[in-house]
Amino acid sequence: MTRKLRIGLIGSGFIARCHVYGYRTMLSVFPEAAAQPELELVADMTDDLAKAAAEKFGFRRATGDWRKLVADPAVDIVDICVPSHLHKEMALAAIAAGKHVYCEKPVGLNGGEASEIAAAAARAGVKSLVGYSYLRNPLIAFARKLIQEGAIGEVTHFRGAHNEDYMADPAAPFVWRCDSAIAGKAGALGDLGSHIISIARVLVGEIASVCGATKTVVAERSLGGGRTRKVENEDQAQFLVEFVGGATGHIEASRVATGSHMDITYEIVGTHGQIQFDGERMNEIRFYSDKDPVDRRGFRTIYTGPAHPPFGNFVPGTAHGIGFNDQKVIEAYELMELVAADRPTGPDFTDAATISRILDAVLQSAAERRWVKVAAA
Amino acid sequence: MTRKLRIGLIGSGFIARCHVYGYRTMLSVFPEAAAQPELELVADMTDDLAKAAAEKFGFRRATGDWRKLVADPAVDIVDICVPSHLHKEMALAAIAAGKHVYCEKPVGLNGGEASEIAAAAARAGVKSLVGYSYLRNPLIAFARKLIQEGAIGEVTHFRGAHNEDYMADPAAPFVWRCDSAIAGKAGALGDLGSHIISIARVLVGEIASVCGATKTVVAERSLGGGRTRKVENEDQAQFLVEFVGGATGHIEASRVATGSHMDITYEIVGTHGQIQFDGERMNEIRFYSDKDPVDRRGFRTIYTGPAHPPFGNFVPGTAHGIGFNDQKVIEAYELMELVAADRPTGPDFTDAATISRILDAVLQSAAERRWVKVAAA
Amino acid sequence: MTRKLRIGLIGSGFIARCHVYGYRTMLSVFPEAAAQPELELVADMTDDLAKAAAEKFGFRRATGDWRKLVADPAVDIVDICVPSHLHKEMALAAIAAGKHVYCEKPVGLNGGEASEIAAAAARAGVKSLVGYSYLRNPLIAFARKLIQEGAIGEVTHFRGAHNEDYMADPAAPFVWRCDSAIAGKAGALGDLGSHIISIARVLVGEIASVCGATKTVVAERSLGGGRTRKVENEDQAQFLVEFVGGATGHIEASRVATGSHMDITYEIVGTHGQIQFDGERMNEIRFYSDKDPVDRRGFRTIYTGPAHPPFGNFVPGTAHGIGFNDQKVIEAYELMELVAADRPTGPDFTDAATISRILDAVLQSAAERRWVKVAAA
Amino acid sequence: MTRKLRIGLIGSGFIARCHVYGYRTMLSVFPEAAAQPELELVADMTDDLAKAAAEKFGFRRATGDWRKLVADPAVDIVDICVPSHLHKEMALAAIAAGKHVYCEKPVGLNGGEASEIAAAAARAGVKSLVGYSYLRNPLIAFARKLIQEGAIGEVTHFRGAHNEDYMADPAAPFVWRCDSAIAGKAGALGDLGSHIISIARVLVGEIASVCGATKTVVAERSLGGGRTRKVENEDQAQFLVEFVGGATGHIEASRVATGSHMDITYEIVGTHGQIQFDGERMNEIRFYSDKDPVDRRGFRTIYTGPAHPPFGNFVPGTAHGIGFNDQKVIEAYELMELVAADRPTGPDFTDAATISRILDAVLQSAAERRWVKVAAA
Repeated sequence: MTRKLRIGLIGSGFIARCHVYGYRTMLSVFPEAAAQPELELVADMTDDLAKAAAEKFGFRRATGDWRKLVADPAVDIVDICVPSHLHKEMALAAIAAGKHVYCEKPVGLNGGEASEIAAAAARAGVKSLVGYSYLRNPLIAFARKLIQEGAIGEVTHFRGAHNEDYMADPAAPFVWRCDSAIAGKAGALGDLGSHIISIARVLVGEIASVCGATKTVVAERSLGGGRTRKVENEDQAQFLVEFVGGATGHIEASRVATGSHMDITYEIVGTHGQIQFDGERMNEIRFYSDKDPVDRRGFRTIYTGPAHPPFGNFVPGTAHGIGFNDQKVIEAYELMELVAADRPTGPDFTDAATISRILDAVLQSAAERRWVKVAAA
Repeated sequence: MTRKLRIGLIGSGFIARCHVYGYRTMLSVFPEAAAQPELELVADMTDDLAKAAAEKFGFRRATGDWRKLVADPAVDIVDICVPSHLHKEMALAAIAAGKHVYCEKPVGLNGGEASEIAAAAARAGVKSLVGYSYLRNPLIAFARKLIQEGAIGEVTHFRGAHNEDYMADPAAPFVWRCDSAIAGKAGALGDLGSHIISIARVLVGEIASVCGATKTVVAERSLGGGRTRKVENEDQAQFLVEFVGGATGHIEASRVATGSHMDITYEIVGTHGQIQFDGERMNEIRFYSDKDPVDRRGFRTIYTGPAHPPFGNFVPGTAHGIGFNDQKVIEAYELMELVAADRPTGPDFTDAATISRILDAVLQSAAERRWVKVAAA
Repeated sequence: MTRKLRIGLIGSGFIARCHVYGYRTMLSVFPEAAAQPELELVADMTDDLAKAAAEKFGFRRATGDWRKLVADPAVDIVDICVPSHLHKEMALAAIAAGKHVYCEKPVGLNGGEASEIAAAAARAGVKSLVGYSYLRNPLIAFARKLIQEGAIGEVTHFRGAHNEDYMADPAAPFVWRCDSAIAGKAGALGDLGSHIISIARVLVGEIASVCGATKTVVAERSLGGGRTRKVENEDQAQFLVEFVGGATGHIEASRVATGSHMDITYEIVGTHGQIQFDGERMNEIRFYSDKDPVDRRGFRTIYTGPAHPPFGNFVPGTAHGIGFNDQKVIEAYELMELVAADRPTGPDFTDAATISRILDAVLQSAAERRWVKVAAA
Repeated sequence: MTRKLRIGLIGSGFIARCHVYGYRTMLSVFPEAAAQPELELVADMTDDLAKAAAEKFGFRRATGDWRKLVADPAVDIVDICVPSHLHKEMALAAIAAGKHVYCEKPVGLNGGEASEIAAAAARAGVKSLVGYSYLRNPLIAFARKLIQEGAIGEVTHFRGAHNEDYMADPAAPFVWRCDSAIAGKAGALGDLGSHIISIARVLVGEIASVCGATKTVVAERSLGGGRTRKVENEDQAQFLVEFVGGATGHIEASRVATGSHMDITYEIVGTHGQIQFDGERMNEIRFYSDKDPVDRRGFRTIYTGPAHPPFGNFVPGTAHGIGFNDQKVIEAYELMELVAADRPTGPDFTDAATISRILDAVLQSAAERRWVKVAAA
């Protein structure tokens, strides 16, 4: 009999839907997981909204009070899918109730909040997983393997970006992501930049110092009815990086990069090779090795296949492709393995706190127009 | 209350698993469908195998006798996921029992069998859907729209291929697909060529004549234990095409195309533009228009997005990508819409019979080394 | 003192200009060649035209009578850059005068004329070179090396095309290429198809049989002033191929392939690898090997570099790129080496005659709608 | 009678050869130019070297004393192809002699030297052209046209790089480029970064401030015979940019970017579109416009053609391709037009001085770890 882990989900928006997709679909893809999720309880702002969410998502029960959810004895894992300003209170409450926590990124409004949450989780001994879902692409593990094997030699330079254009149209309305009290002071940087930072850390290691610049391209956005509101965080951000290991780097994020729909990209240069990835072609990676004979050196376009676990769980044929949602399926699987089998994965709250401190350092460096060291935990 | 359509599935192999994936996942993606599938009954060769399948796939009941399944009053749709030589008997029995039928391609061992099934379904008035799942890629509908709008002018030439390399290694063992009594006389042509033919018909129209050539690259394959068996159908096939509408074409299929993992490709040339697609990058299509100003003419790489339904049901962001399995999710949705809402879709048994007659004509032309007209229904 | 070979050029159109470009530029690129060309004499239809050509191209002398040119003792090499219907008379005269001959493709109006020219050259012991300039791309020699080394195993299938769109616009005027008395009965096939056939022969070997189809997409074209004329040869052609060595293939050519500006492409599938090339990216080739570890197999995009001679003569850095004209520079160099150093190259008149007989076989097979063997020399 | 401009070339290395290639080839490509170059006099370190150069390059006369060359009345244009530390003395002497000057980049050892040269040229009223040859790619003019037309809206962000791997191998020997007394304090930045800066200025405008970082990846390099020498300037550099017009940017340069053979790349994001270019595919550019209908938006891959002057001078067919050397042919043409027809082009010494001051600012910002304003002229 497969073990069940009962999920208590807070929120019912876009990302909550993605989580539910992951929970529901993982049984088809990972029937052998250490546990399968059970959709136990969902919380939203009112009882009615929560009931609608329960019906839509297939949860057994619903509540208009998230505090009841975190305290509910039938909930094993609290899953937090709400804007950043609510993370701290909810996560701390869930941790205090002894729940394992699955939380959307970037966790809290800043590095201070994230660190506080991470410390509480550590003290309580609960497990945590943060939804940096692009890390679930099987090619991340493959790129990491290549680097660790020395296939590109010593890493000397990293270029990373997460550029999208979902707010490129100046007529795109003001949304909560533009409100720094809700989303945090980091705009594109928090929403998108945090993803590519999570990748940089996994592939190249810790970041020592940063020097950044930010820009709000569209200063005001429509609230509808002719009213507008000032955008309170940046539309695009970029920063130079020094990694602890000695490599240099550049990272950027934009939500106004016209034409870049899903450009989470990285290029990792080493002394003996290079790796390139572009999120718009998420099933392929490019790898160059100077060990190939000189007349046939070139970037290999490698399509994800069964040789890149857990792709084979989805489909047995190379280049048959998985999609955006499938990353959340893998994330749900990792969550089950983490909690039920104690198999270490990441990123947890500690990782998320480190990422948030990097975001803080970027904003500080942009304000002070100089390099800033990333604060220690 | 959402209507339920009860599925009776025959088979439990790779493609059966894909069907089940589609059934299970469509609730997450198409909650608004006219009906949702209910996993009622699964049949396999023995009761034990069927029970294992039921547990693995989440079916309510199991049977070792497919005849019981097709007769079961609690089954609304019979889903046939077994090799081609069993299609005819099962499909005819299901039709005779008044069931709607969802069947894997290419349907039967040849055009004769497929036509017989199609005629029976027509007489019985049951609905049918055949698993030409690459037609479910949202970009097929988009390409069709472009063509119908005249965006590339009159179609003059079609190049299509479905090349894979799953048997490229001569050491790959003999499998049922190499046995013409089970898989049919068409090897790569039946398995893969039928897919690209299904696309050619949807995008360019009916095929009038063909002239083909076939080749069995690996003549014998291992049965294990040092024994080998003669491969009874071709590893690669190609044929020239004349469409009823006047366009010319070339279609090929190979299961030994080393390096081509998932190359279902088409290039459609028109008097005013061109469309190109490669299945290894299933989320993008290339479109050229001579209406663009001369200094900025070029193929546009268009990523699938919400503007290409039903992609938006999966994820709201362009270029975020769907995968191979998602095509079966859409197929399951289409099945529900077909049966519950009487919304015409395709391909049905009549289409499948036409495709099978094209396969027959290709084999005949290859044998006779001349052009052959595709037989009428 | 570098040896000089004196050129007598007949013609002054587009391709003549390309030849002159090659002659003039090869001194910069191949200063070490066994000889350098000297622009001695140019012939055109009238004395005035010839004088203008001499001035434009930098020839020492001019004549309105090509017969004087072929007889001129100060001419070492006769270079024929005129439409196909004039090839036979001019080439035979040049051969009779004991001149080496450099002739544009496809040589004569058909296989019969080309064979007659080839036989005459053989009897006279003069050297010949035919302007199949795409063979001069350094990547052809590299692809050939890969194949001969066994890097892709045994070749099983060849796909080749030379598609352009220079006449895709139905309003494009009638030109001599549409007149079968001048250009030959093969339209796109003769102009473009002959090029990709020349590549197929170099890379895969001799062609045994063909089965083709042709189509004149635009039946009439404008002569200006409201008058039109029937197009006398095909706009697009395609044919199935059987190589002597056992491989199968498909070759096509079109002058109306909207959006395909310079698509001379080939894809060569072998039992252990694959090679892909597209003329619009003439400085790169894609190579797949199943000898790579399974998790890092993929097509390598290899840019031309000094490891692919004679690229290094142009520029010492990989991926810095050469262009269309540079192929004619290499061809001029090969001509000098052929004549002055007796270094065998190709294609000569014998090769051209073989290619012309293949064209004839394609046209015959298209007319008879069946496979046709290529006639022996 | 075509006007002749007599060239006095100083130097005979790689780049001198490129200049000569340009001079010699432009007659074939630009017969209509306002003047044609005449290879009058070449100077090298000794009389013998100069004589060898004259023979190799086809110059009429030779000298071992560059001072004689700049003073020679038969020289109209002094062409300086020597390392940076010699630029100042030679350029000032040539200017003093009233010669027009064609000089390789980056001009002098630093902004101070370059500015001094620029001022002298301005005072003397002589014309100057600096060899930023990547600006000669016809696609630069096209990209500029797109931007000026507003085809991508207002430019918001620029990413540029010139990465190569010619010194990626740690065993690559110490060369003059590693010696700051000869090449300047800017290593990859001066050699390669200056090129991409030249492009950034032409496409996006003046740079106001920079914040950079540099790294010498290979600290010592071989002098042969077991001896090594410290590398005195950086192998890779990167910097954040603020343009005067408000756009942000990032620019990097590396000579150790393994796998990047010729990656001069730029990506220009605007409020309504984006442009992307990669130097390894120098005949194509990618252009995205949000004015396209939403279902067919995508980057167009536009191949250079006659619509992008002066490409049509090379070959009349789109996508037929030009190469690296052809940029120097265009540069030679521009030089002739500048001097003989007084047609303004660029970049001149004033532009080069601005670029050099940007390099100085990058080095200063890297040393001081903060943003630095680019010094005014």
